[in-house]
Amino acid sequence: MTLYLNLAELLGARIEQGLYRPGQRLPSVRSLSLEHGVSLSTVQQAYRMLEDNGLVAPRPKSGYFVTDHRSLPALPAISRPAQRPVDISQWEQVLELVRSTPQADVIQLGRGMPDVNSPTLKPLLRSLAQISRRQDMPGLYYDNIHGNLALREQIARLMLDSGCRVSPADLVVTTGCHEALSTSIRAVCETGDIVAVDSPSFHGAMQTLKGLGMKALEIPTDPITGISLEALELALEQWPIKLIQITPSCNNPMGYIMPEARKKALLTLAQRYDVAILEDDVYGDLAYTYPRPRTVKSFDEDGRVLLCSSFSKTLAPGLRIGWVAPGRYLERVLHMKYISTGSTSAQPQLAIADFIEAGHYHPHVRRMRSQYQRGREQMIDWVTRYFPPGTRASRPQGGFMLWVELPESFDTLRLNRALLEQGVQIAVGSIFSASGKYRHCLRMNYAARPTPQIEAAVRKVGETALRLLVEEHSPA
Amino acid sequence: MTLYLNLAELLGARIEQGLYRPGQRLPSVRSLSLEHGVSLSTVQQAYRMLEDNGLVAPRPKSGYFVTDHRSLPALPAISRPAQRPVDISQWEQVLELVRSTPQADVIQLGRGMPDVNSPTLKPLLRSLAQISRRQDMPGLYYDNIHGNLALREQIARLMLDSGCRVSPADLVVTTGCHEALSTSIRAVCETGDIVAVDSPSFHGAMQTLKGLGMKALEIPTDPITGISLEALELALEQWPIKLIQITPSCNNPMGYIMPEARKKALLTLAQRYDVAILEDDVYGDLAYTYPRPRTVKSFDEDGRVLLCSSFSKTLAPGLRIGWVAPGRYLERVLHMKYISTGSTSAQPQLAIADFIEAGHYHPHVRRMRSQYQRGREQMIDWVTRYFPPGTRASRPQGGFMLWVELPESFDTLRLNRALLEQGVQIAVGSIFSASGKYRHCLRMNYAARPTPQIEAAVRKVGETALRLLVEEHSPA
Repeated sequence: MTLYLNLAELLGARIEQGLYRPGQRLPSVRSLSLEHGVSLSTVQQAYRMLEDNGLVAPRPKSGYFVTDHRSLPALPAISRPAQRPVDISQWEQVLELVRSTPQADVIQLGRGMPDVNSPTLKPLLRSLAQISRRQDMPGLYYDNIHGNLALREQIARLMLDSGCRVSPADLVVTTGCHEALSTSIRAVCETGDIVAVDSPSFHGAMQTLKGLGMKALEIPTDPITGISLEALELALEQWPIKLIQITPSCNNPMGYIMPEARKKALLTLAQRYDVAILEDDVYGDLAYTYPRPRTVKSFDEDGRVLLCSSFSKTLAPGLRIGWVAPGRYLERVLHMKYISTGSTSAQPQLAIADFIEAGHYHPHVRRMRSQYQRGREQMIDWVTRYFPPGTRASRPQGGFMLWVELPESFDTLRLNRALLEQGVQIAVGSIFSASGKYRHCLRMNYAARPTPQIEAAVRKVGETALRLLVEEHSPA
Repeated sequence: MTLYLNLAELLGARIEQGLYRPGQRLPSVRSLSLEHGVSLSTVQQAYRMLEDNGLVAPRPKSGYFVTDHRSLPALPAISRPAQRPVDISQWEQVLELVRSTPQADVIQLGRGMPDVNSPTLKPLLRSLAQISRRQDMPGLYYDNIHGNLALREQIARLMLDSGCRVSPADLVVTTGCHEALSTSIRAVCETGDIVAVDSPSFHGAMQTLKGLGMKALEIPTDPITGISLEALELALEQWPIKLIQITPSCNNPMGYIMPEARKKALLTLAQRYDVAILEDDVYGDLAYTYPRPRTVKSFDEDGRVLLCSSFSKTLAPGLRIGWVAPGRYLERVLHMKYISTGSTSAQPQLAIADFIEAGHYHPHVRRMRSQYQRGREQMIDWVTRYFPPGTRASRPQGGFMLWVELPESFDTLRLNRALLEQGVQIAVGSIFSASGKYRHCLRMNYAARPTPQIEAAVRKVGETALRLLVEEHSPA
């Protein structure tokens, strides 16, 4: 365990034991640094972690204070999925979610939609329009199979932020992250192969495994530190796993960032058992901490990590531009990309390349990160106020999704049906499991700036949940 | 055989036998109608077929005349592929072709690029630009998984031209025809399944079979009437075929239009052996005859035909918008579409829907059809003049591709390498076969308006071929 984790755990334990009481000032960074013989930045990291867990809060120029943490929802426990390879179900529930078109009269808390109304996106829209008017009309031609070179150069530059050194020739532009995932999985696996996944896990990736005829082996996952390496190692011992598929930075749906030491340990494990890693980094640039977390890929030396990402969460999903850095699987990924969609649409690629090159990407992402961080506070506050007692909630470290756990017996499929009648839609927890676990959980999106309408929608979710819980426990 | 085919064969035989000599006037439509007891339109159809085969030519207000057909290249013979299921090879050659980016200094005769410089495309570019400037920015959002409803309505209307009645709910919009093909194949087949294909056949579809682990069974195919139903029936007897994959209208690479009666017979065969048909109609709207040919799908009553198409050949490939009408396989195709790319980019969908709705589609396609028909005459003329004696060539009935056959021993891979040094690129024949047959063949694109540069490029192809042939036959 790293130093800051140690320290955070110690301070957390003291708070839990009541040594520091709610509202009380905590020791200064400097004094803790002296007391424990660690650097100032290690103490700061520990405090940030406690802050992210809702145990402490900074006050400007006065240091850190214990929050009234008893009022915050508890964290979900580490997940306990069935530890054997299973065929993936839940397609009907996913289809219901993705079939829906944005409608004015439904508040969609269920989908993975970022806020695309920021003025910092304006230059991108201007670029898109300009490219349509260019004399040589590049948007009408087939692009080459790797994707536009100017865009690949910009992506390679952005990837330096996560400690990754790749050249444009190492990248393949895809039609959104979906295509990055499906081409990567097919580059590594064949029908019937077993893929280990974090659990809960992104439904799109899991449905891809289903569609390609693979089996998922769900690994217990901690809501703060991510996939359990101990459970993963046991699984690697026991099963002929071909691929480990994870979202370690700003996980979807739980929002954790796997500590760097654990990312390295994961890679070592993959090397030892000679399996590939598919790293979904689609939310990675939206981490609330600066600099953004490193990727597993950034430690990879033998090309076994396929990093998949896209601009769908950082810029806009409608552009359908993603990429994969497939390491040693480049040739196979190119083939799979070719048969999947041929080349990728040129116009959005050119527009995004312009946008990044002109320096608009980082200011935009900075702005969105702080908006989403504020959104998280607001959403956790609403859940605290409106949800039934006993509700647990994640503490996202980036992105714009909150994972909420209701009592074990609860059925969010019923909840979702009751909510749709009231013009609210959520993502039911069961789609985040290969075998339909997490029926008592749900995921809500807090990307949009808070409005009374959104508050009313979240309140409806909480109150309807409470009503269903009460009905469940009353005699028929 | 239908009446017009009978009549065309009879007249063709008389010309071959010298009963009508080059330059001589043929009997009038009216007199043939009386002589054979068939309708005027049947005679006209027969004459059009002979015209398409280069045997006769109309002169304004004077009727039909025998062309100097001896100077035209002979037609390729019916193909004779190995009639057993094979694993598909040739990926390296395809990759070489699709990896290339359009370059100013290379004349690309090899790729399937339409002419996108027509002024009739201008409204589409305007629409694309306008959508980027719209206040609600629909291009930035996830679309629903079926695709944009307005576009599906327009596609359903266009499909009436080929005799097809489908509703928008029967359609799935895809990222180009590639995605239509790959989702369809995966909706029907599993790894290891056998798919019967026309031969030569589109390399993209064949590489999809390869990528998905299926085997191809190449069926002998006639350069005028298409896939041999007799050979197909034998194959269906002998092998557990799951799917028949064909391009019956304006075939790529051979350009034939399978006669309607044979399309119906094909469907009957598929019903008898209970197999699905994947019909690639991507060039169908570019048939030189009006009305455009009917699709096999238009006769389908039990939903066994999956029709795949796109706007890549009729409008522009860079838009990456295609569709599939998957019949009874709708649910499976939706799943495969979801895992392949999620939803399809909204902006080009909206722009194309606007373009069609405003009435711009048909005038544009009419204009391109006649440009391509003139291009065919020009290209056949160049091949006649510049290619080695004994060269055979197809007589495309639509689209913009010419299939050229050199003597059996010839190697177009060598030719292509020699040409690349001279700034010319062709598509080598071997990529149109699962097993690398047709090495002595090549495909050339005649979409662009003829220029001295293009003529010089075609001349280089012919002269380099001649040089290689001579070298081959001289003592080392």
